[in-house]
Amino acid sequence: MVTTHELSVQTRGDGDVLNLTGQLGSCVHRSGVTSGIVVVAVIGSTAGITTIEYEPGLVADIRTAFDRIAPTGVAYEHDSRWGDGNGHAHVRASMLGPSVALPLVDGKMALGTWQQVVLVDFETRPRTRHIVVQIMGE
Amino acid sequence: MVTTHELSVQTRGDGDVLNLTGQLGSCVHRSGVTSGIVVVAVIGSTAGITTIEYEPGLVADIRTAFDRIAPTGVAYEHDSRWGDGNGHAHVRASMLGPSVALPLVDGKMALGTWQQVVLVDFETRPRTRHIVVQIMGE
Amino acid sequence: MVTTHELSVQTRGDGDVLNLTGQLGSCVHRSGVTSGIVVVAVIGSTAGITTIEYEPGLVADIRTAFDRIAPTGVAYEHDSRWGDGNGHAHVRASMLGPSVALPLVDGKMALGTWQQVVLVDFETRPRTRHIVVQIMGE
Repeated sequence: MVTTHELSVQTRGDGDVLNLTGQLGSCVHRSGVTSGIVVVAVIGSTAGITTIEYEPGLVADIRTAFDRIAPTGVAYEHDSRWGDGNGHAHVRASMLGPSVALPLVDGKMALGTWQQVVLVDFETRPRTRHIVVQIMGE
Repeated sequence: MVTTHELSVQTRGDGDVLNLTGQLGSCVHRSGVTSGIVVVAVIGSTAGITTIEYEPGLVADIRTAFDRIAPTGVAYEHDSRWGDGNGHAHVRASMLGPSVALPLVDGKMALGTWQQVVLVDFETRPRTRHIVVQIMGE
Repeated sequence: MVTTHELSVQTRGDGDVLNLTGQLGSCVHRSGVTSGIVVVAVIGSTAGITTIEYEPGLVADIRTAFDRIAPTGVAYEHDSRWGDGNGHAHVRASMLGPSVALPLVDGKMALGTWQQVVLVDFETRPRTRHIVVQIMGE
């Protein structure tokens, strides 16, 4: 059995981190699938999906870490060519990756107590983001 | 067909890298699935899963690289708020990602000869880690 | 239904980025699967898979960013032990990850208009790369 769900969320951009876990749990419940795989993927090339202990300290820390890897104050070829000013956002998103695959066991995603599935939006401005949730199993 | 397997491993923490490939091969064998997808996911927010050529040199090199991205000697908001002293471990784990999805073809995971599936435990102390292995296919 | 496809591509190595999206679309079409999951995985431990807006600026920028994380001018234990001179390539590949899982909806992978699935080959020399594409669904 395969079911598809789409989430739309409003971000503030600039490394904003949104906790999707509750909405994903609802998708899993509605799907009726209790054993299988969940794939969570964000549409677009300046945001990514991962897991984190969702608390304000780490939300700040992850942004700081990405500032170190792909700083905003250096030159990007993307910006020179297209003038978008979001070269760093693209690089960060590609490094983080657009999706996460998780086991679905006994009707629940395999996550720790302090482990949440999050969207990280690196875009330079607020965005409406669309996330496709694919649930496959039995 | 969906089968679920759980591995428990003892790590030394602090960037310890454990080769899971042999145990995963046993899971695949026991599952009876010969064609499909394998999802390997670690429970918790201070460890991640990836592939690497598993040899002592690279085990050291990957730790050094993560020291560069999310050093231990800088301030983390997570540590200021919670006093855990493991802010860097959380950040590293979120960047690496909690899971890997691999094709399962002719009863084997799609891996190169010198490519192993590993757990990287960034926690500041030894931990028992639980890994959920979801095998789906026919 | 599970179908397996293998792509072989020729890279120039050294952070070369190849757009696989067109070939993946052909695989999806041939598979006959319209709803499910696509897993794209590269064989080998010095290359990775992600998504990016595939344009020459970002192809340069992603290489620059990986130069920052795992520079070529520093010592790697891997190189000391094995003399391969590709320690940085291994570290970069492990950080990026060997695969991406994407939803397959209405016969199309869930991707944005400016979001392509790419292989990044970090190896120090040109390589022929084999990518396994697993398509599962109905």
